Amino acid sequence: MTDTTRGELRYEGKAKRVYATPNPTEYLVEYKDEATAFNAQKRGSWVGKGATNNAITAALYPKLEGVGIPTHFIAKLSDTEQLVKAVTIVPVEVIVRNVAAGSFAKKLGLEEGTPLARPVVEYCYKSDALGDPLINTDTAVALEWATEGDMARIRELALQVNGFLTPFFGQRGIRLIDFKLEFGKLPSGQLVLADEISPDTCRFWDAETGEKMDKDRFRHDLGGVEEAYGEMLRRVEQA
Amino acid sequence: MTDTTRGELRYEGKAKRVYATPNPTEYLVEYKDEATAFNAQKRGSWVGKGATNNAITAALYPKLEGVGIPTHFIAKLSDTEQLVKAVTIVPVEVIVRNVAAGSFAKKLGLEEGTPLARPVVEYCYKSDALGDPLINTDTAVALEWATEGDMARIRELALQVNGFLTPFFGQRGIRLIDFKLEFGKLPSGQLVLADEISPDTCRFWDAETGEKMDKDRFRHDLGGVEEAYGEMLRRVEQA
Ligand SMILES: Nc1ncnc2c1ncn2[C@@H]1O[C@H](COP(=O)(O)OP(=O)(O)OP(=O)(O)O)[C@@H](O)[C@H]1O
Ligand SMILES: Nc1ncnc2c1ncn2[C@@H]1O[C@H](COP(=O)(O)OP(=O)(O)OP(=O)(O)O)[C@@H](O)[C@H]1O
Ligand SMILES: [Mg+2]
Ligand SMILES: [Mg+2]
Repeated sequence: MTDTTRGELRYEGKAKRVYATPNPTEYLVEYKDEATAFNAQKRGSWVGKGATNNAITAALYPKLEGVGIPTHFIAKLSDTEQLVKAVTIVPVEVIVRNVAAGSFAKKLGLEEGTPLARPVVEYCYKSDALGDPLINTDTAVALEWATEGDMARIRELALQVNGFLTPFFGQRGIRLIDFKLEFGKLPSGQLVLADEISPDTCRFWDAETGEKMDKDRFRHDLGGVEEAYGEMLRRVEQA
Repeated sequence: MTDTTRGELRYEGKAKRVYATPNPTEYLVEYKDEATAFNAQKRGSWVGKGATNNAITAALYPKLEGVGIPTHFIAKLSDTEQLVKAVTIVPVEVIVRNVAAGSFAKKLGLEEGTPLARPVVEYCYKSDALGDPLINTDTAVALEWATEGDMARIRELALQVNGFLTPFFGQRGIRLIDFKLEFGKLPSGQLVLADEISPDTCRFWDAETGEKMDKDRFRHDLGGVEEAYGEMLRRVEQA
């Protein structure tokens, strides 16, 4: 199935490859085993990483669709491949934070783990060359990366994703600390959730032990990276 | 007059001193001749700087009041002193940008001078120790530095200030590129514009020559700093 579906390579990123398919409105996304951090200054890989992230994303997106969040996801094709709707990615990474961690905690002088009185939605300009700089809605609109209406809808959808995922993971013994989303536009102009949701793009902390269950294990050489990703897949698949 | 008005020194900043007065609801602000840049890593001073900035601020604030923007300003007391309403400063610096310049242009890979399709309002956490990091409204609210209502009002007032100042300077042959504001709360809870508006806190470019008429001359050792500040005062005082 996958061999006939896979057309020309359209984009190779750090974690995924995007291929054309016979249907111009659909892409095939292949999840790679490579891991990168700190804007690709740190590199690694392990067998099964791509399959794990593909499986987690493929499990979560239909659940998000189920609560009314439109996504690019069509179907899982194989261990490492999924079929998605081709979109024009809005060049703005959307970060939702429930608890201060990472660069946010550091720049504000907060201890990692400081709870936020309400979710914080941040926006970064999607540019590896510039290091994904923090921007805001005004900047995205002023530089014509999105309209005011797009940004309002993106914020609404990001908060809806958080509203679903926080209790979903909570019930599975995981605190959802923060995560990054990408949105894209269909030819119709509809905004949909695109890209992935996985331990590469979220901070997951075990609710009992406080253990990090995400890419921070790789970023900071904490060991047990592969095991943490595998455990997150088990939690997601848990009834 | 000033000697009897000036009570205990309450705060000494890089550019001003704030004194108590016999009236606990009022402060005396003294403008100093010191100039600093890059979070005080670069230092300098010239005779008359304090007087110039005091005069510019004292000329502008009543005009802003005149178009309905509440400010802390009460009266100019002397060359270097003004009387203001004592406020609790919201620990958020508000930057309004009409044209990309400075750190904003640099981080986004834009040429300095790129016009923005609409004004951009940015917020920084007012912390010298942390280097005034860029934040957004959500962060200010989540960390309880201001309420959602405060931030909406601050944005509205900042855009009103821009709406007044841009044509005001335009008529005087100056392009208002960007500027920084601070807001404070009166005991009544009312938000008012506080601090100063001067070549220390604005980017002013001569509309004909493109020459910088502000602190960037000091920051980047362009020479003619004192002359540029003096010229800006003349433009402000121009009928
Ligand atoms: N439905 C979609 N249609 C088109 N592009 C998509 C879609 N979903 C995700 N993408 C894009 O496909 C790429 C996936 O590759 P990957 O995640 O490896 O990129 P990356 O290395 O993170 O780099 P970057 O995201 O900065 O381009 C991303 O550029 C992502 O924005
Ligand atoms: N009406 C007011 N009531 C109380 N404080 C005020 C008022 N107006 C301005 N301020 C505060 O007075 C200080 C003025 O000093 P100055 O501008 O030299 O400070 P600074 O060196 O820029 O440092 P910082 O602004 O980071 O404190 C600032 O802290 C400013 O926020
Ligand atoms: Mg990516
Ligand atoms: Mg100041």
